[in-house]
Amino acid sequence: MDFRRVNDRPNTFVVVFEPGEEAMSTLTAFAREQSLSASQVTAIGGFERVVLGYFDRDRRDYQPIPIEEQVEVLALIGDIVGDGDDVKVHVHAVVGRRDGSAHGGHLLEAVVWPTLEVVITETPAHLRRRFDPETGAALIVM
Amino acid sequence: MDFRRVNDRPNTFVVVFEPGEEAMSTLTAFAREQSLSASQVTAIGGFERVVLGYFDRDRRDYQPIPIEEQVEVLALIGDIVGDGDDVKVHVHAVVGRRDGSAHGGHLLEAVVWPTLEVVITETPAHLRRRFDPETGAALIVM
Amino acid sequence: MDFRRVNDRPNTFVVVFEPGEEAMSTLTAFAREQSLSASQVTAIGGFERVVLGYFDRDRRDYQPIPIEEQVEVLALIGDIVGDGDDVKVHVHAVVGRRDGSAHGGHLLEAVVWPTLEVVITETPAHLRRRFDPETGAALIVM
Repeated sequence: MDFRRVNDRPNTFVVVFEPGEEAMSTLTAFAREQSLSASQVTAIGGFERVVLGYFDRDRRDYQPIPIEEQVEVLALIGDIVGDGDDVKVHVHAVVGRRDGSAHGGHLLEAVVWPTLEVVITETPAHLRRRFDPETGAALIVM
Repeated sequence: MDFRRVNDRPNTFVVVFEPGEEAMSTLTAFAREQSLSASQVTAIGGFERVVLGYFDRDRRDYQPIPIEEQVEVLALIGDIVGDGDDVKVHVHAVVGRRDGSAHGGHLLEAVVWPTLEVVITETPAHLRRRFDPETGAALIVM
Repeated sequence: MDFRRVNDRPNTFVVVFEPGEEAMSTLTAFAREQSLSASQVTAIGGFERVVLGYFDRDRRDYQPIPIEEQVEVLALIGDIVGDGDDVKVHVHAVVGRRDGSAHGGHLLEAVVWPTLEVVITETPAHLRRRFDPETGAALIVM
């Protein structure tokens, strides 16, 4: 993973992933190292395999949807909320298979190939997530 | 719906929807209350049901595509154009079903569950839409 | 194609395409005319036909996936890197068919109808792409 701070108003990073890197852990590590506050994430690229998640309302947990083949990353969108050491990355991904069919879900895990080109736009705000017992989800609180 | 202005250069809002809120009317009401000028919208989250639209060229109208089940909101992208009281929200959505298959269209109506996390980036420009009789669509004029 | 510079901090353009315009060549021409440096692209709209690409790892080339019908452009995301005269546009697209099914890939070619509403956010950074013989892809170098 290599990155460059491409703007300072607003604070903007281009983060380029390398083949074989796991997307979620690498992105989270980057967000923590940079102590990112509330930020927006968009990306395109490719994965050689990915585990998507579908939130099961009854079980209050993500049902994993593994795709064990090379896919295009068509749209990776998400947000980062940070408050000091507590930085949370939340991204959803749409991926495209060889036949052009699109699939997607909450991004649980993915191995990058050949690249993932991420743009992160940071804001000065400090937002947090709090577990909501009613829905079973960690929701943003202002 | 709760929101926070997270940056002022550019003017940026994080808008967090609550379970049961209808996405299009809530987003439009927010845009009008804030008198948003030309803005960009991105979001992820979940819907418990959604009506997508496919623009039928012959009928010059949206054909509704209802999905009556919990879906992940994989990528909601759009724009807002505003000129005084006349504020128009235009968003397209990609959603993911339990099997990971992706579906999408023009967003006609959707009920949020458990959340929708929206980032709106405003610009100072005032753009408008005008009905174009040739295509039957309301196109942005500069 | 018509455009307006809607903000100067960060430098932001709204580019509105007209029916019949080819998306990739028009977007690339715009990026070159404006000598865009590192930029982020998002868009929604419609295509009357599109050729998506899936990167075939064995052949080290894009396998074309033509869709010869009117589709909604659900999410077009990408980046532009520029360094003087050398400006490269890289976008992926998710499109929706009449039945709501989503398809996508690297955007090779597309004819717009009725519109494509593009937001381009530029940064002052100069990034480049370099052909990587190992993957067969043109990767961003910082």
